[in-house]
Amino acid sequence: MPKLVLLRHGQSEWNQSNRFNGWIDTYLSVTGKKKAQDAGRALLKQDIHFSRAYSSVLSRTIMTMNRILDELGQSYIPLMKSWRLNERHYGILQGEDKDDMRAKYGKEQVQIWRRSYSVLPPKQPAYDPTVTIAGQKYPAFDHRYAQVPYGLLPLSENIQSTEIRVRPLFEEEIVPRLRAGEDVLIVAHGTSVRALTKLIEGLTPDQVTKVEIPNGEPIIYEFDKSLSVYKKKIIHS
Amino acid sequence: MPKLVLLRHGQSEWNQSNRFNGWIDTYLSVTGKKKAQDAGRALLKQDIHFSRAYSSVLSRTIMTMNRILDELGQSYIPLMKSWRLNERHYGILQGEDKDDMRAKYGKEQVQIWRRSYSVLPPKQPAYDPTVTIAGQKYPAFDHRYAQVPYGLLPLSENIQSTEIRVRPLFEEEIVPRLRAGEDVLIVAHGTSVRALTKLIEGLTPDQVTKVEIPNGEPIIYEFDKSLSVYKKKIIHS
Repeated sequence: MPKLVLLRHGQSEWNQSNRFNGWIDTYLSVTGKKKAQDAGRALLKQDIHFSRAYSSVLSRTIMTMNRILDELGQSYIPLMKSWRLNERHYGILQGEDKDDMRAKYGKEQVQIWRRSYSVLPPKQPAYDPTVTIAGQKYPAFDHRYAQVPYGLLPLSENIQSTEIRVRPLFEEEIVPRLRAGEDVLIVAHGTSVRALTKLIEGLTPDQVTKVEIPNGEPIIYEFDKSLSVYKKKIIHS
Repeated sequence: MPKLVLLRHGQSEWNQSNRFNGWIDTYLSVTGKKKAQDAGRALLKQDIHFSRAYSSVLSRTIMTMNRILDELGQSYIPLMKSWRLNERHYGILQGEDKDDMRAKYGKEQVQIWRRSYSVLPPKQPAYDPTVTIAGQKYPAFDHRYAQVPYGLLPLSENIQSTEIRVRPLFEEEIVPRLRAGEDVLIVAHGTSVRALTKLIEGLTPDQVTKVEIPNGEPIIYEFDKSLSVYKKKIIHS
């Protein structure tokens, strides 16, 4: 039976310093690097030979993935890095301190932006090549997204719009691999893991908003022949 | 003008302990990891945006590559891991101490096996699923090579046979990228870097046997429109 192992990246420098990451590229904290290695070691005991791996194009998933694959001795497998697995774009909140935003917009409003399925945080202003956040250009001017059609680049996202962009990758790339009996490994972000969980388990919008995704804890799905979830197990690493 | 940056992985644990690596998968030593980061930092100053990267399927090139891409802030680019960029297969020498082999076969004989363009070291015995070297199975029973046709898996290689397997990747995958004006990064091994150098610079067999390839020093090629080498520069990192 095919297996899909899904996890959220280890703690990033901005998770640690309480800032909204979104599409801003941040690195793993020391804790995050260690957690990634621990996750790799815990997975090693599961004795899974992955045929393929998937991450976002943000460094925190790639750094987590590389550490896991090193620990597994499986760094040779193909790794597809897709913008479709990115964290949700957090609009104008990106780069801001979470407490500052609560002070500015109110605690409840920020909580709605963080957890609502369909409410969008305020959009990032129109594209401008001269603006940078934490030294980084808007996606439209970032080499990372050179292959992504301009019209698909978001200015703000919620769980729903994240699910909409994750879905084609899941249905067209990952599901066929599972159908072929392959085992796959995915390292993504809080919101893209939520979206994948919804697609895999068939959750409702209301259910998905309540899913908590800890950093660096592998979720192992085993499927039956019809790709229904046969078993779900979380490895506490 | 398109650029190709080529380097040999940082020092491996077995480079350090004086054993023949070949296709045996070994990790970077502490020195090797540091050298990879230094190479990344030195390359950062060259301000090249790579469109694509290539490594072998052995951990020492992948670990080097990941560290370089992290330093460059370009870990998001596609990385193709190909067995065609592997170190030469060292036949029965794999896993053995270099001095032990000199004592057993004579210094000159070992030097011929190491440096000759066309002399093959004695072949590894016929495939056997029960045999392991340093805990690793023969390539025919290793997941890493599951997609490689059985008949292409070597039992021993020299510079010439390494060049023969590197060539299709170079001509069918890398040259078209350069023709399209893309900049590419390759991390390979002593012998596969030699083979690439021969293909890029049009060296004779005699010339290629004399090329010395230090660990972790990026070689930057710039090409003209006809893909002749316009400039070659080695970055001492």
